[in-house]
Amino acid sequence: MAQPSHAWRGVIEHYRARVDITRAISPITLLEGNTPLIPAPRLATALAQGKTEFELFIKFEAGNPTGSFKDRGMTAAITQAVADGAQTVICASTGNTAASAAAYAARAGIKCVVLVPDGKIAAGKLAGALAYGAQVIAINGNFDDGLRMVKQASERAPIALVNSINPARVQGQKTASFELIDTLGDAPDWLCLPVGNAGNITSYWLGFVEYHRDGLATKLPRLLGAQAAGSAPIVLGHIVEHPETIATAIRIGNPARWREAVQALDDSGGHITAVSDEEILACYKTVSRTEGIFCEPSSAAGLAGIAQGVREGWAELEGKRVVCVLTGHGLKDPDTAIKGTVPPITIEPNIEALLKVID
Amino acid sequence: MAQPSHAWRGVIEHYRARVDITRAISPITLLEGNTPLIPAPRLATALAQGKTEFELFIKFEAGNPTGSFKDRGMTAAITQAVADGAQTVICASTGNTAASAAAYAARAGIKCVVLVPDGKIAAGKLAGALAYGAQVIAINGNFDDGLRMVKQASERAPIALVNSINPARVQGQKTASFELIDTLGDAPDWLCLPVGNAGNITSYWLGFVEYHRDGLATKLPRLLGAQAAGSAPIVLGHIVEHPETIATAIRIGNPARWREAVQALDDSGGHITAVSDEEILACYKTVSRTEGIFCEPSSAAGLAGIAQGVREGWAELEGKRVVCVLTGHGLKDPDTAIKGTVPPITIEPNIEALLKVID
Repeated sequence: MAQPSHAWRGVIEHYRARVDITRAISPITLLEGNTPLIPAPRLATALAQGKTEFELFIKFEAGNPTGSFKDRGMTAAITQAVADGAQTVICASTGNTAASAAAYAARAGIKCVVLVPDGKIAAGKLAGALAYGAQVIAINGNFDDGLRMVKQASERAPIALVNSINPARVQGQKTASFELIDTLGDAPDWLCLPVGNAGNITSYWLGFVEYHRDGLATKLPRLLGAQAAGSAPIVLGHIVEHPETIATAIRIGNPARWREAVQALDDSGGHITAVSDEEILACYKTVSRTEGIFCEPSSAAGLAGIAQGVREGWAELEGKRVVCVLTGHGLKDPDTAIKGTVPPITIEPNIEALLKVID
Repeated sequence: MAQPSHAWRGVIEHYRARVDITRAISPITLLEGNTPLIPAPRLATALAQGKTEFELFIKFEAGNPTGSFKDRGMTAAITQAVADGAQTVICASTGNTAASAAAYAARAGIKCVVLVPDGKIAAGKLAGALAYGAQVIAINGNFDDGLRMVKQASERAPIALVNSINPARVQGQKTASFELIDTLGDAPDWLCLPVGNAGNITSYWLGFVEYHRDGLATKLPRLLGAQAAGSAPIVLGHIVEHPETIATAIRIGNPARWREAVQALDDSGGHITAVSDEEILACYKTVSRTEGIFCEPSSAAGLAGIAQGVREGWAELEGKRVVCVLTGHGLKDPDTAIKGTVPPITIEPNIEALLKVID
């Protein structure tokens, strides 16, 4: 079947010369990427707390097919796995990777096995992975246990590992930086994002460095990474055995790309900080109410990092152009959204009842 | 704040000359539109049941900011309302309109009131509307009751109505047809979609006719509309007092744009049919498992219409190019996804336990 001629063709085709994976087969794609970069002036004002002024854009990665940033890397990992002859792929996940792996495996017509922490992933993520037909296995353990197990499984059985330690994942994921620069005309001054397994921050940095090296950006951004306080191994400098946070997507105590993340932060003159669940939830509410942008709680960690940096005076944002990555859709975790609000009242279906309750 | 120069700027700016709403203010936009058109060859084979062959594309409207097609029309309706001085907007909704209205109202900094049928909207949709800060009011009644009430409220109070009877909604919504033609280079042979309140089918047709009239398409598509069997007023030719279906987004017994939909179906040489909840759920599962595309149940009604048309022999699809609109994300309704699958088993966190259960 011919592809339509004017269409967006997904990140592998769009950045064909730069995504270093196999060309043996056509990409397995759901036309991921091409996500909106939304100016957020009212949110900027809220985060600035009257102390500074900066320009803020939201890179809304929830616009990807499965509702999270993971699709960029997954199209590359699944394409490579299929070209290599894999019939089954496996991953450990806090939920977003699971849904993405399951979707792209379904698209490719191969089997997908995902390991998730029992009772610790959001409803929308579980729904996704199941809907796409993956074999979902819950473990009495956390993400880090799962990652260890899937590594072992991929060594002992003919199963391809598609966690972000898979180098193809980084190749696809870095296209987010390319899109940012292509849209803005240059790199931003700051890039802010949540840090869990540290694959995303590593990939963004790789993309920025590559475009800068090739003259497609005049500068490199500073990175502002945010970890949840109960799950902040990079900030603390040691593994967290029992990570805890409401931001389930970054509930990871031993990040696979720890070293690369630290290097990227150093090279960029950046900063990594720990934000409390309260700070995360406050920003999660602020972004939806001030800008109409609904993200999952983890996504708001980057915003909380900005707010904290302004409050504590360490973030040099004055007059800068700041991009904050919102990694997943609020629809991934409806329970947290509903929990934080007043339930709707119920009225009889007549106009008098309605006019009485409109406040 | 300057807009970045290379960015997608939302449907109003992108189709500036064609979206007939006010130019008094800058559009209130979340950069909606620009959604992927995904080739779906394996799904086409499944729907063809060995009886025919056609080319199938999915217009995945779930990629919009709030996860449904409603954002295209809502950017226009809220922009017009704000320009007209509205401080409050109101709508009745089965959920998607509520979330979209709430998001764009938040973006504009105005108040939003939404009426939803008590207990009859999906979890993700309620979560969205609440997260964006709308006043959500449940009614002891259905969508049709809600629509009557909000019409009355907008007549008696200084509140702007943003349901799809608002003409600005259609102006934004029709941009989906423009995108289809811009991507494919011409109109498809068939456009298939679910029909609830009939605003979407009306808008698509308006867009197709406009591009065709202006020489931007050489032909017009035939429309294939699908209603849920328990909620099929247009198919039956009379109002359904108590509409029922698992496809909550199209649980509407008295469509506001009934007349326009019938006209569009007639003018296009199209067809409208009623599909059972079983047929809808079967297609809902097939699209996620064969293509890795997760939609809400209502979205699958269009696919079910195709399957039925092939089975019953009335759909002339042989050799044709078919576009099916998936209107909302599967994440909107996680409960239906989880209900239809086997819950994950839980294992101890060790490799032997894992290797034993991988099937």
